[in-house]
Amino acid sequence: MTIAGIDGPRIGVWLLGARGSVATTTIAGHAAVAAGFAPTTGLVTALAPFDGAPLPGLDGLVFGGSDVTDVPLAKRAEGLCEAGVLPAGLPDLVAAALEDAEGEIRPGIAEDSDEPPLDALRRLQADITGFAARRSLDGVVVINCATTEPTPPAAPEHERLEDLERALGEGRAVLPPSSLAAYAALELGFPFVDFTPSTGAHLPALAELAALVGVPYAGRDGKTGETLVKSALAAMFADRNLSVRSWSGVNLLGGGDGAALADPARAASKLRTKAQVLEGILGTPVEHHVDIRNVADLGEWKTAWDRISFGGFLGVRMRLEFTWEGADSALAAPLVLDLARLAWAACQAGESGALDALGFFFKEPLGGGGYRLDEQWDRLLRWVGELRSG
Amino acid sequence: MTIAGIDGPRIGVWLLGARGSVATTTIAGHAAVAAGFAPTTGLVTALAPFDGAPLPGLDGLVFGGSDVTDVPLAKRAEGLCEAGVLPAGLPDLVAAALEDAEGEIRPGIAEDSDEPPLDALRRLQADITGFAARRSLDGVVVINCATTEPTPPAAPEHERLEDLERALGEGRAVLPPSSLAAYAALELGFPFVDFTPSTGAHLPALAELAALVGVPYAGRDGKTGETLVKSALAAMFADRNLSVRSWSGVNLLGGGDGAALADPARAASKLRTKAQVLEGILGTPVEHHVDIRNVADLGEWKTAWDRISFGGFLGVRMRLEFTWEGADSALAAPLVLDLARLAWAACQAGESGALDALGFFFKEPLGGGGYRLDEQWDRLLRWVGELRSG
Amino acid sequence: MTIAGIDGPRIGVWLLGARGSVATTTIAGHAAVAAGFAPTTGLVTALAPFDGAPLPGLDGLVFGGSDVTDVPLAKRAEGLCEAGVLPAGLPDLVAAALEDAEGEIRPGIAEDSDEPPLDALRRLQADITGFAARRSLDGVVVINCATTEPTPPAAPEHERLEDLERALGEGRAVLPPSSLAAYAALELGFPFVDFTPSTGAHLPALAELAALVGVPYAGRDGKTGETLVKSALAAMFADRNLSVRSWSGVNLLGGGDGAALADPARAASKLRTKAQVLEGILGTPVEHHVDIRNVADLGEWKTAWDRISFGGFLGVRMRLEFTWEGADSALAAPLVLDLARLAWAACQAGESGALDALGFFFKEPLGGGGYRLDEQWDRLLRWVGELRSG
Amino acid sequence: MTIAGIDGPRIGVWLLGARGSVATTTIAGHAAVAAGFAPTTGLVTALAPFDGAPLPGLDGLVFGGSDVTDVPLAKRAEGLCEAGVLPAGLPDLVAAALEDAEGEIRPGIAEDSDEPPLDALRRLQADITGFAARRSLDGVVVINCATTEPTPPAAPEHERLEDLERALGEGRAVLPPSSLAAYAALELGFPFVDFTPSTGAHLPALAELAALVGVPYAGRDGKTGETLVKSALAAMFADRNLSVRSWSGVNLLGGGDGAALADPARAASKLRTKAQVLEGILGTPVEHHVDIRNVADLGEWKTAWDRISFGGFLGVRMRLEFTWEGADSALAAPLVLDLARLAWAACQAGESGALDALGFFFKEPLGGGGYRLDEQWDRLLRWVGELRSG
Repeated sequence: MTIAGIDGPRIGVWLLGARGSVATTTIAGHAAVAAGFAPTTGLVTALAPFDGAPLPGLDGLVFGGSDVTDVPLAKRAEGLCEAGVLPAGLPDLVAAALEDAEGEIRPGIAEDSDEPPLDALRRLQADITGFAARRSLDGVVVINCATTEPTPPAAPEHERLEDLERALGEGRAVLPPSSLAAYAALELGFPFVDFTPSTGAHLPALAELAALVGVPYAGRDGKTGETLVKSALAAMFADRNLSVRSWSGVNLLGGGDGAALADPARAASKLRTKAQVLEGILGTPVEHHVDIRNVADLGEWKTAWDRISFGGFLGVRMRLEFTWEGADSALAAPLVLDLARLAWAACQAGESGALDALGFFFKEPLGGGGYRLDEQWDRLLRWVGELRSG
Repeated sequence: MTIAGIDGPRIGVWLLGARGSVATTTIAGHAAVAAGFAPTTGLVTALAPFDGAPLPGLDGLVFGGSDVTDVPLAKRAEGLCEAGVLPAGLPDLVAAALEDAEGEIRPGIAEDSDEPPLDALRRLQADITGFAARRSLDGVVVINCATTEPTPPAAPEHERLEDLERALGEGRAVLPPSSLAAYAALELGFPFVDFTPSTGAHLPALAELAALVGVPYAGRDGKTGETLVKSALAAMFADRNLSVRSWSGVNLLGGGDGAALADPARAASKLRTKAQVLEGILGTPVEHHVDIRNVADLGEWKTAWDRISFGGFLGVRMRLEFTWEGADSALAAPLVLDLARLAWAACQAGESGALDALGFFFKEPLGGGGYRLDEQWDRLLRWVGELRSG
Repeated sequence: MTIAGIDGPRIGVWLLGARGSVATTTIAGHAAVAAGFAPTTGLVTALAPFDGAPLPGLDGLVFGGSDVTDVPLAKRAEGLCEAGVLPAGLPDLVAAALEDAEGEIRPGIAEDSDEPPLDALRRLQADITGFAARRSLDGVVVINCATTEPTPPAAPEHERLEDLERALGEGRAVLPPSSLAAYAALELGFPFVDFTPSTGAHLPALAELAALVGVPYAGRDGKTGETLVKSALAAMFADRNLSVRSWSGVNLLGGGDGAALADPARAASKLRTKAQVLEGILGTPVEHHVDIRNVADLGEWKTAWDRISFGGFLGVRMRLEFTWEGADSALAAPLVLDLARLAWAACQAGESGALDALGFFFKEPLGGGGYRLDEQWDRLLRWVGELRSG
Repeated sequence: MTIAGIDGPRIGVWLLGARGSVATTTIAGHAAVAAGFAPTTGLVTALAPFDGAPLPGLDGLVFGGSDVTDVPLAKRAEGLCEAGVLPAGLPDLVAAALEDAEGEIRPGIAEDSDEPPLDALRRLQADITGFAARRSLDGVVVINCATTEPTPPAAPEHERLEDLERALGEGRAVLPPSSLAAYAALELGFPFVDFTPSTGAHLPALAELAALVGVPYAGRDGKTGETLVKSALAAMFADRNLSVRSWSGVNLLGGGDGAALADPARAASKLRTKAQVLEGILGTPVEHHVDIRNVADLGEWKTAWDRISFGGFLGVRMRLEFTWEGADSALAAPLVLDLARLAWAACQAGESGALDALGFFFKEPLGGGGYRLDEQWDRLLRWVGELRSG
């Protein structure tokens, strides 16, 4: 294995939604790549510009996590094989790794749980520290890959840490599970990464907590398909001074993702992150539509079709259409590994708060830095350069 | 008009292929924009980053040129209206500008002409200097928008200026018309821009001439459609470490362009410039197909369809398809105006030789600088910044 | 003009929504074709199999109608020119015909009107009979091209004519405008055609009225785009025993149509008619999605994208995708002319009730006859043969 | 198994190209379906309209054939598994059937063979009759699934059987392998089916032979993708009187098929059969382009993209685009089974010469009957009805 990385540190990756498709693909794929069964395709941190950067080695990553379901990882991996996401035979090859992670998965926090929030939070922290102790880890990165939550109603307790702590102390359910998990991680001094559009660390009170502890977080909503292409193409229109008149897209999603996003409250979270990109890049309001449609038949796959109508010289109308078709988990999993490595490196480098340098990975980059894929790439490389020379 | 530019200079734009669709759209569109009938959509140099750069103002551009056909510009403009490339009614609004340019068009150099090459060269130079004198111009930029030529056979006379001059002196037809025109421009100290994949200034002997005279040139083959999209998307695949397995595209072209490129020898020139981009960006060989097809029914429009098959994490196969549909002349014309302004500014700044900073505009950027649209954009902006601080 | 048709009869075409895009295109296009300015493209009844059938001639059609807006037809036609639906210059060429029809347009029945229903009905009947008398017509065909209505709540009065008459007599608003218009036409003994998914004649009580009077009606929802393609392709899958696993489509609509269908209640009517086709053809339940999206930028144009996932031999998954892009009114208008001719011919032939032979034109064919385009075509030709042989 | 069919007859299916992808899929898939491991998806003769028709049962089919390569079927089947054409695990399930067929494959006739043609012909006949005797068959159907041949130069010996026999007797190589095989089958009184665009039985002298012997043949070039869709959609345009202005398509083919068709001489055969369909359906000349491109990366899969530009009412331009993506062998194999059953039934019913009733299956239907899919379907069903009623 020639994965760039420094020897030594053993880093725990605690996955929220540890039995989901993304987490299963992450764990199985990590084992395959670390064992040399598969190349590093899809792993951004395996590219040349990351050579020599002070990132934890892939082989130093150890997996655990929590989930509200109890489907065994091995069974889930079989399903991903049948769906063509994992190569035939892979689950057998990595059975030991799956079993290893299976032993480190604990019950998650349900959205509609009766468990007092502080109890849930302490339980999660105990799970994480137990994991770290048991596996002799140098640290843990907590990454949210769980089902997208509805956006919770705004609450005054979200604004200041003091008020939030009081509310939790009084047993009031003011935080969704993703934010309880962010709280748990940050308070322990561990980085938190939100790969979903859920609330996670994106609350003023949690930013206050991160600053207080001096720990970084990153997010949100991994940019793995339609929005990735959009963030590459919109810059092209902008730089050529072509006038985007309307940009209409539809996302056909199967599997659990599609089913979850058939819930309008959850879809709203996802649509919010998808919608910002265009105006963020073009700098002007543009007629913009994004639909999400649950197509059970697609299973683990997703297809997006976008139609862009643009005006050129003298107003003549032209169009671009694209169709993107991919396996969602296969697109997400290597980025989860990248983010574990990068978030840990940021933590080691003493960074605190929202990691704007990681905007390249997200639809709604916390910490700012813009939506253009090219600028995000430049920003990421500059930051890695600083880490290296750092 | 709020087009960024410095007051004063009157710059001639001498168009090779002055009666073609691109030239007609350039002349008519320039008049419309300069008169405020149309916004500056499509003009890169009208974007904010070019504010305050020492570029000649749009309203200082004066048009002339040469062509082997004699269809009047006004008639050609009517045809472009019917094809939906120019807005209805525009030819009437800009009739004076068309008539003005009409008076400055001279017979071009035919590919199969019997005219001794040195006579043709001197005739063209006399046409250009006459244009400059008659219109009191501060200078002229020569831009090739003529039909794509076949790539001429390699000849030893292309290597050194001395040998080339001897060959021309002996009446040997060793240069295609585009290169004779490049010679004519460079010898006069005027910048030459090749918007086509023809040979133009792309010969060692002509690079020697440019260096000797101290005059810049730029090219080649304006990047206006499929290759533009390709140069934006290929970078996305590269930066995400996604493995492009095959990239297959077809270009349906109508009009004169389609008919000319139905000639395999001409198509070969175009296909050469289209083919370099992918490997140039991805850095590895990739199965790559580009076809060009003449579809007379499309008239002034072109459609490209590309299918990209790529491998993701653990080798899972995914795909991206896109269709681009646009009016070729409307995509090209504003870039011709940009290039006239930028090439003149380079000349004024004392630059000489291939302008690699203008790679953003071309499929096969002379002077190097790579094929990635984002890096080309950065390079262009840095250069403009240098011009400004100059 | 060589349009097949019998000499003589002057038939009124009373258009509900007479100032809309479809009606304006119908009136202007009819004038252009009748005058020989344009070929009969798009007119099904101009095809060879209709030669010699006893249809009223195109030049015998006279236009009137009603609408709730008062935009002049001439102005509407100008807008359709700008949108590229009508050829440049056409409104001037057919100005007399537009003015002629303009004089025959009366106020429509508003959806939210306070006018007692019987008053509205009698007013409409007086408008129609006045039109027929003033223009010396042999008869009138009433065709609904108005904005799609929401489906009204089911009501017991819809079941029997006696109950419906009592309700109307008591001033109860139990019928939407399209059904009041159907009532008005049928009671006068004039054929009614519903080109929209609105309720129209599709109520048991109105079927009873049609039978009583002995008058035919046809509908509903003109099949002009995505559903047309669907009804051609679904038969292909069925006959090749290919198993359609999912069929997902999105319709991007601009203009008034898009705006109206952004109202979920109206969209429900349209989605209902679109949804029946697949199961109707495939004979088995299939995962099927159709979305409608209002994209104002598209103006008079519409684009549909469909993705069909199907299983072949041994279950291997394959796909077909298509994009259809057209001008809605240009697709609909010639069919309106066809339907006027065919409905009148049916009336003359003594037919009564739902005209199942006209299923070829509709998404939701009243009278049955199935959804397969090929069977609908056969059925139409057989019926025309019967008309011809009399 | 509930496959419609009559009990009893054991029919040999002699496949030319017996080790190719289509043949391997046919043999493996037949075994899977006959054993009930897979449904009859893709088999036209398994549809309801064929119930009770006097077709040989699927379980009565026995496979043999010839090929110029010697890759074992089992190995080929493994490759088809990896390519996703055969389901994982299928080769093991049907290993006995593959081995059984393996034992009945003999060396084929090479295109560039030095073997005297009459020797090759007699050798093939001996192979076929040996197969029939050894397996106690009631008859054999010979089906050509071999690589597409170049179209041979026209020769006078192709015109009359007498001249052809003389030429063969004199050892002149006037027939390509597919025609030698057709000769061999027809002379033995066995039906011949050409699933490729090769010459096969399509020569006047061979039609004479078929008539003399009283044996049927069918072809040619299985309609499995782009052309299938084309033959469904072109009828839609025709019946709606929409004017197809241009129809441009590109076929990306991988695998052996793509490699073979990268040879322009072979591609010409395929392009000829593809090109007839449009004019055959539309009845008028239309600008029509079809390209074939070898994309090795696609392996056993093929993708076609077509763009149709059509004119509607008043000449307004609209478009339809489609992408078809499928596994070529999976599309072809069930049709090979259908054709074996149908050709044998025709033979039993005493039919002779080109079977125009089977045009539904072919791009270039021998015997005529037109290119419209709907009319071909009707013709097929009528014929099956006649067979049934005896």
